[in-house]
Amino acid sequence: MILDFRVVSHLLGLLMLVLSALILAVGGFAGIDYLLGNQPDTADFKALLLASFSGAVLGLTLLFAGRRPGEFLGQREALLLVALSWLVGAAVSAWPYRLWAGMRPDAAAMTHSFDSYVNCYFESISGLTTTGATILPVIATVPRSLLLWRGLTHWLGGLGIVVLFVAVLPILGVGGRRVYRIESPGPTPEGVRPRIQDAARALWMIYVGLTVVEVLALKVAGMTWFDSVCHTFATMATGGFSTRDSSVAGFDSTPVHLVIIVFMVLAGVNFSLYHLLLQKKWRAVSKDPELRAYLLIIAVATVIVTVSLANSRAAMADGPVDAGLAIRDGLFQVVSIQTTTGFCTADFDTWGFVAKATLVALMFVGASAGSTGGGIKVTRILIAVKVVLAEIEHVYRRKVVRTVKIGKSAIDAELKLNTLVFVMSIAALFMVGTTALMVLEADQNIDITTAATASAATLNNVGPGLARVGATRNYEWFSKPSKIVMSMLMVLGRLEVFTIIALFTPRFWRTQ
Amino acid sequence: MILDFRVVSHLLGLLMLVLSALILAVGGFAGIDYLLGNQPDTADFKALLLASFSGAVLGLTLLFAGRRPGEFLGQREALLLVALSWLVGAAVSAWPYRLWAGMRPDAAAMTHSFDSYVNCYFESISGLTTTGATILPVIATVPRSLLLWRGLTHWLGGLGIVVLFVAVLPILGVGGRRVYRIESPGPTPEGVRPRIQDAARALWMIYVGLTVVEVLALKVAGMTWFDSVCHTFATMATGGFSTRDSSVAGFDSTPVHLVIIVFMVLAGVNFSLYHLLLQKKWRAVSKDPELRAYLLIIAVATVIVTVSLANSRAAMADGPVDAGLAIRDGLFQVVSIQTTTGFCTADFDTWGFVAKATLVALMFVGASAGSTGGGIKVTRILIAVKVVLAEIEHVYRRKVVRTVKIGKSAIDAELKLNTLVFVMSIAALFMVGTTALMVLEADQNIDITTAATASAATLNNVGPGLARVGATRNYEWFSKPSKIVMSMLMVLGRLEVFTIIALFTPRFWRTQ
Repeated sequence: MILDFRVVSHLLGLLMLVLSALILAVGGFAGIDYLLGNQPDTADFKALLLASFSGAVLGLTLLFAGRRPGEFLGQREALLLVALSWLVGAAVSAWPYRLWAGMRPDAAAMTHSFDSYVNCYFESISGLTTTGATILPVIATVPRSLLLWRGLTHWLGGLGIVVLFVAVLPILGVGGRRVYRIESPGPTPEGVRPRIQDAARALWMIYVGLTVVEVLALKVAGMTWFDSVCHTFATMATGGFSTRDSSVAGFDSTPVHLVIIVFMVLAGVNFSLYHLLLQKKWRAVSKDPELRAYLLIIAVATVIVTVSLANSRAAMADGPVDAGLAIRDGLFQVVSIQTTTGFCTADFDTWGFVAKATLVALMFVGASAGSTGGGIKVTRILIAVKVVLAEIEHVYRRKVVRTVKIGKSAIDAELKLNTLVFVMSIAALFMVGTTALMVLEADQNIDITTAATASAATLNNVGPGLARVGATRNYEWFSKPSKIVMSMLMVLGRLEVFTIIALFTPRFWRTQ
Repeated sequence: MILDFRVVSHLLGLLMLVLSALILAVGGFAGIDYLLGNQPDTADFKALLLASFSGAVLGLTLLFAGRRPGEFLGQREALLLVALSWLVGAAVSAWPYRLWAGMRPDAAAMTHSFDSYVNCYFESISGLTTTGATILPVIATVPRSLLLWRGLTHWLGGLGIVVLFVAVLPILGVGGRRVYRIESPGPTPEGVRPRIQDAARALWMIYVGLTVVEVLALKVAGMTWFDSVCHTFATMATGGFSTRDSSVAGFDSTPVHLVIIVFMVLAGVNFSLYHLLLQKKWRAVSKDPELRAYLLIIAVATVIVTVSLANSRAAMADGPVDAGLAIRDGLFQVVSIQTTTGFCTADFDTWGFVAKATLVALMFVGASAGSTGGGIKVTRILIAVKVVLAEIEHVYRRKVVRTVKIGKSAIDAELKLNTLVFVMSIAALFMVGTTALMVLEADQNIDITTAATASAATLNNVGPGLARVGATRNYEWFSKPSKIVMSMLMVLGRLEVFTIIALFTPRFWRTQ
């Protein structure tokens, strides 16, 4: 069959219109902020309005160039739609940044951030993929409206921009299920209600509910409404954009840290478990193997990291260490990295090797399937470990065939293979990314730690890495080609590799 | 069933007797060398005699403590026999080094090499596993007889020490096939003759034949008989121990380099293909998918590495580069690393990043299945790549099921899974090894490049790595715990992971 580009164009156009409407809403905020005297000029207001208008023009063009889909949306069309939605969506979402930089009266003072479209695209895709890697060296120079937009890109990308669309518009029909499967992280979105539109709606309701609760909790903990909303967007989406250069470390308040820890943990749980909770199926939730493994990994990693960081702090201070602070920082960083949020409350680049190695390992483990988090996902790790153990036993008991199970459900051969291929693909992309950065940044004398952790932190949608992309650094210093490579790593990670890779195989485009 | 330790003990005892006889033979060489005036003292002669005697005592003890096997040798007994043969065999093979160091009249001058048993064990296991990583900073201080023994450990380990045993002794009976499967590198030892003893004998005949030809070729190319024999042992086994500190770079002769290149390539080919050649099945050999992929990888990697090294040499010399020399060095190093031999003709640590990254990648690719080389093996890489491609197509053609084939043979689900598990296990062990070295050598300020390439070079049985384990360096400076870790990595790599790992699972030892 021939790929139906017109259907893809129509749906993509619709999505761009939705995005433009959201940019317009943030423009409204910018206007009010100016009237309230929080913003000295109207550059951001104008930029958002213009971006929204351009997005709408693009959206309408695609819409009318396209054709309304019938009952059926093919698998390849669904894949292409999802991939383009993210790539084009990021391009449109980057416009407010770029237009603002161009309109600023004191543009001369603005160098090396939003004055380059590649930087804007990097920031935009980092937002949508919930990575949280930033090219902004000084966040305070950016108006509040753009910081809100930055946070909103996180929040939209968290559950999936096309899934939002499925939830709101009935137009996709049967195709909705395909889109849902492609965009949802993890191998099996099980346990959700059968009708896909209902499922998508239920997820978004839970997401909105948790978001509202966190905004209130952060306000009570002492943040302003604005900081509270921005940090909630970044937490619930496991994104990591903060309104401060020093990230959450800028808020030296245990209640704030605790609230964010709790909601990062919640955002890293499979959302279908909340659905089960609402149905009062306590036992099913408490016995969920992935949830148990996820919490166990957090607990064990926190112990390891805390001991290691306390040791290095003791060595540096040459005296006793504040144990409570060490636990708070250790727990925060473990949760932040494993859920792939990427907030920082301490410069973990100064911690011991064991702490750093544990955190890098957690980047790859990632959060639960069906959560907003990135990485390989705990379920896949569980499956991979069980498959490996079964293979080892097979070496000395050649006739024993054991069924590999996660909880009570047996893992079939196809899922086993698919899981291992996924893990290997992440490893391969990690190495390709590292090599590309080493080569592209050879002039800047990049070290292997920086290249490897930048690759891991973007591919797994974490944000901060180590060394020159450590907690107190940013991604601004990379060359444009490197930023494009990392942008692709972020999309590959967020859409779980195959969606994007498939587009690059000749067979995808072949008619038969 | 209960593990039959007595049968394992009997067979292990026999094997130790064979090893002792070989040590005795090298002792004979030491005696003659002394009489000919090539060696100033008899310390090495005495050390070899004493080592042989101790080995024989150990062998006889094990033999008589044990029990002759019946018709049947169980899978677990076979696994235990192979694992112990390597671990205990290395311990016995290390005695000549340690005893010699203890007997030397000028022992005070000897520091930091054979005066520690851990060092001797490292050197011995590095020999048997055909790794070629050495703890000797100055090879010239070691007598010729011990260098010959060092080379002989390579040659014995090349095809597998227990397989040699299967070839020579009919005692193993049906169990021979199990041992053969466990010790032979790669997934499918196909194409060899059906009776396992005949197959083992045929392999050893081919091995001996190629060895004789290479010794003559190196002699003709200008080496002494002694150097020729030692380098042939190291080449045919893809080991890498040289008689010079500067490895093959110590022989600045294009014919020598070419002969070694040719025989490294030959040693990295599946030995069953030579069997087919002897049967004049030209087409089967020329169409072998692994052979083609193996040669293609060498060719492509040589181009990449040569261009990169020529660039870095041009930058250093700030002038034109000797193109012929660049090609010779590039080809030599690619073949040496991919076959996991580890000989060096140039300090590739000074080459560009692309050359170094390619060489490190080749360490993991490794040689062909059924060759004497290490690494993941080309066949497994082929299978893994094809499985991944099939999975990618499955993303957009959900109903198309394609059979994954290598050549004309379809790969079944079990082999697919097994291959991916193997690749993942190597990756996991590589990371565990790297982390262990980083932690154990933190006091020595080890860098990540050194730790990672030391882990990769020992796990894949290569030998040299980069930075502080680069071509011109050695492994002497590591602490004892690190040397033990790397010794285990070498055995894990040589016995393809599962044999050793299985012994550490509680279920292996359980009666049911």
